Amino acid sequence: MKVANKPYQSIWYEPDTATVNVIDQRWLPHRFQIEQLDTCKQAFIAIRDMWVRGAPLIGATAAYGIALQMREDASDEALSAACSQLASARPTAVNLTWALDRLRKRLEKMDVEQRADHALSHAQELCIDDVRTNESIGQHGLALIRAVQQAKNGDTVNILTHCNAGWLATVDRGTATAPIYAAVEAGISLHVWVDETRPRSQGSKLTAWELAELGIAHTLIVDNAAGYLMRKRKVDMVLVGTDRTLVTGAVCNKIGTYQVALAAKDNDVPFYVAAPSSSIDWTPDQRDDDIPIEQRAESEVLWLSGVDASGVEQAVRISPQTSSAFNPAFDVTPARLVTGIITERGVSVPDPAALCTLFPDLCNQGRH
Amino acid sequence: MKVANKPYQSIWYEPDTATVNVIDQRWLPHRFQIEQLDTCKQAFIAIRDMWVRGAPLIGATAAYGIALQMREDASDEALSAACSQLASARPTAVNLTWALDRLRKRLEKMDVEQRADHALSHAQELCIDDVRTNESIGQHGLALIRAVQQAKNGDTVNILTHCNAGWLATVDRGTATAPIYAAVEAGISLHVWVDETRPRSQGSKLTAWELAELGIAHTLIVDNAAGYLMRKRKVDMVLVGTDRTLVTGAVCNKIGTYQVALAAKDNDVPFYVAAPSSSIDWTPDQRDDDIPIEQRAESEVLWLSGVDASGVEQAVRISPQTSSAFNPAFDVTPARLVTGIITERGVSVPDPAALCTLFPDLCNQGRH
Repeated sequence: MKVANKPYQSIWYEPDTATVNVIDQRWLPHRFQIEQLDTCKQAFIAIRDMWVRGAPLIGATAAYGIALQMREDASDEALSAACSQLASARPTAVNLTWALDRLRKRLEKMDVEQRADHALSHAQELCIDDVRTNESIGQHGLALIRAVQQAKNGDTVNILTHCNAGWLATVDRGTATAPIYAAVEAGISLHVWVDETRPRSQGSKLTAWELAELGIAHTLIVDNAAGYLMRKRKVDMVLVGTDRTLVTGAVCNKIGTYQVALAAKDNDVPFYVAAPSSSIDWTPDQRDDDIPIEQRAESEVLWLSGVDASGVEQAVRISPQTSSAFNPAFDVTPARLVTGIITERGVSVPDPAALCTLFPDLCNQGRH
Repeated sequence: MKVANKPYQSIWYEPDTATVNVIDQRWLPHRFQIEQLDTCKQAFIAIRDMWVRGAPLIGATAAYGIALQMREDASDEALSAACSQLASARPTAVNLTWALDRLRKRLEKMDVEQRADHALSHAQELCIDDVRTNESIGQHGLALIRAVQQAKNGDTVNILTHCNAGWLATVDRGTATAPIYAAVEAGISLHVWVDETRPRSQGSKLTAWELAELGIAHTLIVDNAAGYLMRKRKVDMVLVGTDRTLVTGAVCNKIGTYQVALAAKDNDVPFYVAAPSSSIDWTPDQRDDDIPIEQRAESEVLWLSGVDASGVEQAVRISPQTSSAFNPAFDVTPARLVTGIITERGVSVPDPAALCTLFPDLCNQGRH
């Protein structure tokens, strides 16, 4: 999508320099900084330290990480070590481990000297697929938004989102934002309520920035205000992404999503999850508690960063020196609170039979 | 309660200097600063700009404001103007307008020269009453905590609170914290989950500071994590304060309280509200929407303040320059989500009949 009216993707390969380029998202919205990744180790650091984040973009960065590794040392040992390291960078996103597993198996069957080229093409194709998937999610979600608009006799549609499942979380278009971008392109009048999304404030720092750059009407709120707005009938639908959705329809997403879903249910506001099939965990018979929840540093709760009045970046402590904090990064929204899951093949109710009807090919994979 | 092991109240009259002293809460937890109020105008500013906050403390500060006004000019006109100004400072807390109305009527019946003395005594008595009320709330809440502890076979009781209904929000002891302080004094092992409470972060800045100064075990969480902790059975009860509770049992409190209540309901965690009778709006037949909700400046959402690594106070912008924000300060939790209301006369279920049985004297007042 566009930044200062120039089109960008969140990750791309630059043939001239033979580097992988990413937007270092840690400095947004205050600074737009591009970083070049030369080695697999750098790709690992970019994922672990959250220069890049969002399940689909993590997957793409990891694929490029393997490509960079294969260029340096394409041996089985190097491949296996690179996959393990990359998979360990963030534990909750399901597509990371799986994508790495599949790629490793494919590369292992090849001659060592073919691996670098193949891994690079694979990463590039994965990026093209991601954009195509998100465009399909956008079209299926657009139909839902259009229905709301018609029910409102053409009035502005108010969509609430939590965290960033925007183009910055994917290669392009985003998952939860894809229907929003499609609706704006279709001329539908809409307004987005952007949850701040503490502790890392991806709503304020990334989603609001994306929407501002694209000139889409939006208003920031603290996470605490989502329920209030729904009680006041100011939200027509909730649209969020996911880091891992079980085939049962339980949705693991950024911490606080469960509370948004509860408020939506209590006020009959439809709660939709944009989930590419790569973010669906097809393993059968999993319980919500089976999903590993990443626990992050307490400093994310105790400190906060931004820019001061003169534009200088500053981190400030917002808590007593002696208090500690607990910082789970994700929660699980039970299927009973989910209205529908917007996939690249259509919208599904949150249950295994419906999801497997849309994805018979993937559904069976979980049984291996 | 204690600060650096020295006992304090949040407001007190200093006879030597003939001033009203308050803790300027805007600088906590980083700076403990006492301010002297000399005029009614200063009391108004202290309420409006949130040097002091919390329904009971706002009431006490306003009463002292009238006393300061009467000392300067005790005419009917000055009294009426002072009451109007003070009542306009914060719209949501119910006890402010009522307390000012009652005081004005009483003073109007007196000779002008008696008014200053009477208003000062009245403010001092109101403070003594506030502490007594909170001690009673503490004892009734203690019984609830003790029951939880017994059900857990003496294990640590985990209490979650939102915002600050601590001693800083009252004259002393607090409302929601009064049972916590009573339980700690009774030797019960407990731990408090402190919701950060964006946008003003009264949880991180005030409640965590209170608990830290008193050496009570506590952990900070972002508001988004409350539901996660309840799903994981890490919360035994929720205890919050209120700015105005309708006689129907609907609870107006800091923005986000409704979402905490929804999560508590979904996980069968008891949700208690500590409410002195002065915070109960006895007007019959009011709907939740009748409560005026204060809308505060967007800067509270877009900016945040704290101290940098070298201890210097800084405000930082955490959002794009072009994004705007919406900032409602309170929400209303419907009675159906409230387990009980802890008043100074006992614990009531959230309905008019039960509350009126505890307070027949006040219940009828609402009918005037």
